[in-house]
Parts: sequence; C-alpha cells; structure tokens
Amino acid sequence: MKGLFITLEGGDGAGKSTQIRNIESFFTERGFVVVHTREPGGTPIGEKLREILLDKNNKEMDPVAEMLIYAASRAQHVAEVIRPAIEEGKVVICDRFTDSSIAYQGYGRGLGDMVSEVNARATGGLEPDITFWLDIDPETGKERAKQVGEPDRLELEKMDFHYRFYEGYKAMAMEHPGRIKRIDASMTPDEMKDAIYAHLERLCAKDQ
Amino acid sequence: MKGLFITLEGGDGAGKSTQIRNIESFFTERGFVVVHTREPGGTPIGEKLREILLDKNNKEMDPVAEMLIYAASRAQHVAEVIRPAIEEGKVVICDRFTDSSIAYQGYGRGLGDMVSEVNARATGGLEPDITFWLDIDPETGKERAKQVGEPDRLELEKMDFHYRFYEGYKAMAMEHPGRIKRIDASMTPDEMKDAIYAHLERLCAKDQ
Repeated sequence: MKGLFITLEGGDGAGKSTQIRNIESFFTERGFVVVHTREPGGTPIGEKLREILLDKNNKEMDPVAEMLIYAASRAQHVAEVIRPAIEEGKVVICDRFTDSSIAYQGYGRGLGDMVSEVNARATGGLEPDITFWLDIDPETGKERAKQVGEPDRLELEKMDFHYRFYEGYKAMAMEHPGRIKRIDASMTPDEMKDAIYAHLERLCAKDQ
Repeated sequence: MKGLFITLEGGDGAGKSTQIRNIESFFTERGFVVVHTREPGGTPIGEKLREILLDKNNKEMDPVAEMLIYAASRAQHVAEVIRPAIEEGKVVICDRFTDSSIAYQGYGRGLGDMVSEVNARATGGLEPDITFWLDIDPETGKERAKQVGEPDRLELEKMDFHYRFYEGYKAMAMEHPGRIKRIDASMTPDEMKDAIYAHLERLCAKDQ
C-alpha cells in the first residue's frame, strides 16, 4: 500500500505550522502513520545545507548556487526520508517542496525554467499528491512573520522580491489546479482547517 | 583583454599540485597575474560545502545530492572568483572543474547526462581554455596518494569506482581533443612539466 505525500506552501506568516498540525491530526485520527518534515533540511546533510542557506553572513551567495543547494537538500530528503516513507504506506507532510524553489528562485530571482529542470533531477520526478498553498498577500505576511522572531536571510529580502515569488505561486496554482489547492490565509485558522479537511476527505475518498 | 582559464584533472596521486606550481611559474614569468584556486571550495560558501562533501560521517549521501552540492560550489566559484578574474585579464588555474564531476558522478556513480546538464547551468556555460588531464592508472594513483595523508570520503571508495571514473576521463579526452590534453603521469615531474609547457607555448602563440 502506497502512502501519501502532502506539501504546504506559501510566504511566511501564512500559518503553515498550525495547519500542518491539523493535517497531522486528520491522518493520525484515521490510523495513518504520519511523517512530518521540512525543507530545506529534513536530514542531517540537509540541515547542514540549511545552515548555509539561512546564514545572514552569506550575502555573496550566487542565485544559481543557492538554487542548487536547495535542490541538493531536496535530493537527500527524497532519497533518505520521503520516498522510503511513502513506500512504507506512511503519510508524509512536508513544509515546503519544489514549488518553493520555483516561486523563490525561478520567479523571485528570475532564474526561470532551470529551476524545474534541476529539481526534476533532484526529486527523480516525485510530485506531491496534494499541495496546500496558504495564500496571504506579501505585506500582511511580512507583518505577521515579524511578530514571531528574528528574520533570516530570506526574510530580509526586499518587498519586490516578495511580490515576485507571490506571483510565482499564483501562476503555479493556475497551472496545476488538480494538485495545488489555494487556501485563503486571511480566514481564521479554524476556517482554514475546514477548507483543508474538505480537500483531504475528497483525496481519501478518491484513494480508496 | 580577456584572461585564460586553465584546469587540472586526474585521480589522486597524479602530481597535480606540483604541476599547478609549474603552470603558475610559467605565467608569472611572463608577467601575468595568476589566480590559483581549487574545487570543491574556492569561496567561503564553497569551503563550507566542501566540508560536507569530504566529511567521512556523511555516508548516507545520495549520489544526486552529492552531484548538486558540487555543482552549487562550482556556481559560487564561477560567479565570485573565476569569471571576474578572467574578465580582468588574469590567468585562472583551477584544481578540478566540471570534468571532475562528469568523471566521478557521471561515470563513477552512473548518473550519466544529468551531470553535464546541471553543470552547464552552474557554470553558465563557462569552459576552460585548456585542461591538463594527468593520466595515472588507478592502482598506482591510490598507492601514491596513500603516502600523502589520511584518506577522505572519496578516497575511501572502492577500486571499481576508481576504474569507472578513470574510464570517464579517457572518454572525455577522446571527445574533446582540442581542449583536454593528456599528460602521462608515469613520467618524472620534470618531463610532465616540459610536456605541459609545450602546450602552453602553443596556447599563448595562438592567443596573440
């Protein structure tokens, strides 16, 4: 029995952590074993790469190098954690995946098609069964994220970068309406949970 | 005035360090500014990636992740060091470059074409003006390298891996006879130096 692969996407401050906990409950209540993981990171090698990516001192980072480090972390993550868990019938919930790279590096940094090309190699073509895009406008997201803690290197980026990757998410949601479900993150957490659960019910019904 | 980009390739124990010093002398004696660098590494971000790559504890490293980390280090190296130096008219001598990845990851690990595809993205298509492949048979190279110091993760690999990447170098030298010059590393260091200098004289004559 094959498991499920679920990813969450969206700018900071959209409430991903709360919804990940909700999705986790949805599946544990139904008797599934859930693996909750995140990108970049998720493996010992990936966590070391994550440190390099988020280090505020690495201001000289070339955009292509950055994209390749994310892809390397992802390749390790898929090989060591995600693919084995899916094959064991588990539900893998991942905080960010390839869509993040396409949004941030492809659209945000203007790297274009090379991002999906390289990531197809990194993941061996693995795609999520369903992706929740928690849609929050960049200004509101930034305000909310500020209240949480110290900003990292990516959060310090200028506002026009935030708008560009936001446009990227919008374009991808239009392109993959079957996989990517837009969740309006201006709703309350409980309303968002209900919207997500409705999609999960349909996904489980389809899977049986 | 555009500079020159020279790379050295070959298994461990072939005598690359000695020949790099010789090539450096060749150009400094002729009034060039020489930049001597190495891969993986060559930049602060690249050196951090190098640590991850050579760490003996990282035995779980996925081959695709490994290839992508090398490519990331290379992208940073090209953007921050190699391309600016060439544009300033300097001679860049680099210990290993894309050919190493094609030999070790493409042939050695069996990743095939994705290695040159990803690296073309990493380097923005930059190719060396001349590459010296210091050709030593894998058994002899391993024996010589043993005498130098503690083996790292890659040096510990099994012998059949060494033979596979050796075949990779051979195939590339056949494919790019204009750029890749085979230097027989069973010669004495001085004989190797003479062979290399002859190629460099021709390259400089052609360049004027």
